[in-house]
Amino acid sequence: MPHKDEKGIDVESVTSRRQDVLIVEKQFHTFAEPPGELVLESGAKLGPVTIAYETYGTLNAAKDNAILIAHAFSGDSHVAGRYPADREGEKPGWWDFMVGPGKGIDTDKYFVICPNILGSCMGSTGPASLNPATGKPYGLGFPMMTIGDMVTTQKILVDALGIRRLHGVIGGSVGGMQVLEWCVRFPDIIRCAVPIATTMRHSALAIAFNEIARQAIMADPKWNKGEYYSGAKPGMGLAVARMIGHVTYLSDKAMHRKFGRRLQDKETFSFGFDGDFQVESYLRHQGNKFVNRFDANSVLYITKAADYFDVVDRMGRSGPLHENGGQKIKYLVVSYSSDWLYPTYQAKELVQTLKRSGQDVSFCEIEADCGHDAFLIPDERLTTLIGGFFDGLA
Amino acid sequence: MPHKDEKGIDVESVTSRRQDVLIVEKQFHTFAEPPGELVLESGAKLGPVTIAYETYGTLNAAKDNAILIAHAFSGDSHVAGRYPADREGEKPGWWDFMVGPGKGIDTDKYFVICPNILGSCMGSTGPASLNPATGKPYGLGFPMMTIGDMVTTQKILVDALGIRRLHGVIGGSVGGMQVLEWCVRFPDIIRCAVPIATTMRHSALAIAFNEIARQAIMADPKWNKGEYYSGAKPGMGLAVARMIGHVTYLSDKAMHRKFGRRLQDKETFSFGFDGDFQVESYLRHQGNKFVNRFDANSVLYITKAADYFDVVDRMGRSGPLHENGGQKIKYLVVSYSSDWLYPTYQAKELVQTLKRSGQDVSFCEIEADCGHDAFLIPDERLTTLIGGFFDGLA
Repeated sequence: MPHKDEKGIDVESVTSRRQDVLIVEKQFHTFAEPPGELVLESGAKLGPVTIAYETYGTLNAAKDNAILIAHAFSGDSHVAGRYPADREGEKPGWWDFMVGPGKGIDTDKYFVICPNILGSCMGSTGPASLNPATGKPYGLGFPMMTIGDMVTTQKILVDALGIRRLHGVIGGSVGGMQVLEWCVRFPDIIRCAVPIATTMRHSALAIAFNEIARQAIMADPKWNKGEYYSGAKPGMGLAVARMIGHVTYLSDKAMHRKFGRRLQDKETFSFGFDGDFQVESYLRHQGNKFVNRFDANSVLYITKAADYFDVVDRMGRSGPLHENGGQKIKYLVVSYSSDWLYPTYQAKELVQTLKRSGQDVSFCEIEADCGHDAFLIPDERLTTLIGGFFDGLA
Repeated sequence: MPHKDEKGIDVESVTSRRQDVLIVEKQFHTFAEPPGELVLESGAKLGPVTIAYETYGTLNAAKDNAILIAHAFSGDSHVAGRYPADREGEKPGWWDFMVGPGKGIDTDKYFVICPNILGSCMGSTGPASLNPATGKPYGLGFPMMTIGDMVTTQKILVDALGIRRLHGVIGGSVGGMQVLEWCVRFPDIIRCAVPIATTMRHSALAIAFNEIARQAIMADPKWNKGEYYSGAKPGMGLAVARMIGHVTYLSDKAMHRKFGRRLQDKETFSFGFDGDFQVESYLRHQGNKFVNRFDANSVLYITKAADYFDVVDRMGRSGPLHENGGQKIKYLVVSYSSDWLYPTYQAKELVQTLKRSGQDVSFCEIEADCGHDAFLIPDERLTTLIGGFFDGLA
């Protein structure tokens, strides 16, 4: 059943199939126009707020077949399919293997929504957006925001789309944090929740890596206390920050398999600093690629939100908090054996916290050597697991 | 028995006891004066070369009771005791709990030598030293050097000290690499070898962390392609590099125990970027402390030497290579259960390589949650293990 969003766009019509490829368009929802700004967890006010999002499939008549996908730290709303203007060779959305007709999250059955997170730079309001008070980009004038604030803006979007109940919320990494935050904030409208490769709160190790990434950015003189939008980007610092992140998303074994000690375009050592090993070239490439697509200030704000995140006490509250119309939320917690950023023991802590408070929770640790980022790599086990979980409860 | 070094210094006299505290002085040995420069593994020439070193205890008449301690990446020759000019509260040498009268490496029995590594900035020739060809610091004009080159200069020092045979070579981390290199280069003068928390070659993960540290330094505009000795240091980049290193020396568990999510001088979140968590303050402190004592270019050269290091093939050669006067070198390989930079599986690869080639090797994995740096933390188990090993073979 077609549904019109705030701008009068027919939601059903923006997703169509072309030779079994989903064609999708980025949409925008703007709210909290001054003087009705959003009050954030810190007490700061922010408005107007725009949330970029994409939808796939059709909202049913009961408006209860929606699944919200929360993306990870550097992700965006483009979860699957292609844009009409995509050139040949352009990659589809970041979870294309999971989301689409007949896939794990079946867009023939579900109305899928993926909002770009608050604080990002992929269409939603963030530090690179114009501050209406100054007419210039916010920079560090952007208020500090939390995972809770991200979820608040997503709830506003969900309401605006006319959705009454979410069949599911799902996401990996920082997306998994949003899933948990959804469950403690809005338990009465969620049927099932799938936090993947995530944690109830950052360990000292995870905070440490985020802090080093922030320091790398702030060490770049071009960062200029966050005011660089009219000049050169702090590309060197941002590249180093990304390299640090990238290593934490992989694993010792995966890096051994992918790179080992193989040399890049060389037969012997160069005895210089231009890089000898493939792993060095790979990291430099990842760093530079990120500079072209992401905003350094967004890294600062989103990593800080992840560091602040802590739902241990709130997940542990028993009873009606996690209930949805008399039914408990059904949780499926997924971890990866080689994830050392949010290791399985942290997923087990989540499972135990939920179980102790009488929640309905299933748990699966997937054996995979590719580290934290494993959920982004096509894997039939994950697709089947998630498909079965959502469909079994539909 | 006293022994005079190249400069006529009585070796015995530079170590004395003051209330059971070793008093030691830094010494220097200079060689390879042009035109007799040292030819490095890369083919480049370097000279003159100065190696700073310290000695403890007395060389015996047979000149065969010497133990060489190879320090780690950012260490120095000051392995134990105090300098005469030390102020109140000054810390003793970095392995003071291990080296001294009656300690694990007993200076009443052994003549202990600790040379500062080539390429460092703690007295030995490195990129901050004056290049005689230009009259200015080498900077990137310093030739790339290897772990093998470090050992070559140590052998020249050992010869100059009149030492005919080493009772032992011992070291952790990059020091352990030097131990292995000693064994494959000069097996005929070594009685026993103790590589601790080390590897036969860097994994892709270890190379990755080193490369990110180098990129952090080179991203600092003050680095200026290595020419900063007459101006401001690349302190921001160097601090970030150190923070990265520091995290790899710890472990998830140790960081949880030391810091957890405790806030620094705060009761609630600051909602700013000045740092909230103790682990953030700790890393910033470690970064800044390092900037005051270490040279950024030395980090580049030493990390690169560690990345190049690879003795897999050479350790695996069987037979006389590892023999010392008809007797095989006795190896004691030590690893730590929580070391994820050079994990136990890499120590086991070393043990298997040695065993397959018929070598005499003992192995001990020490259960400790403090990560790679565990060998620098006082631990009776390590002291007893090493004391027993050296004394049993004396």
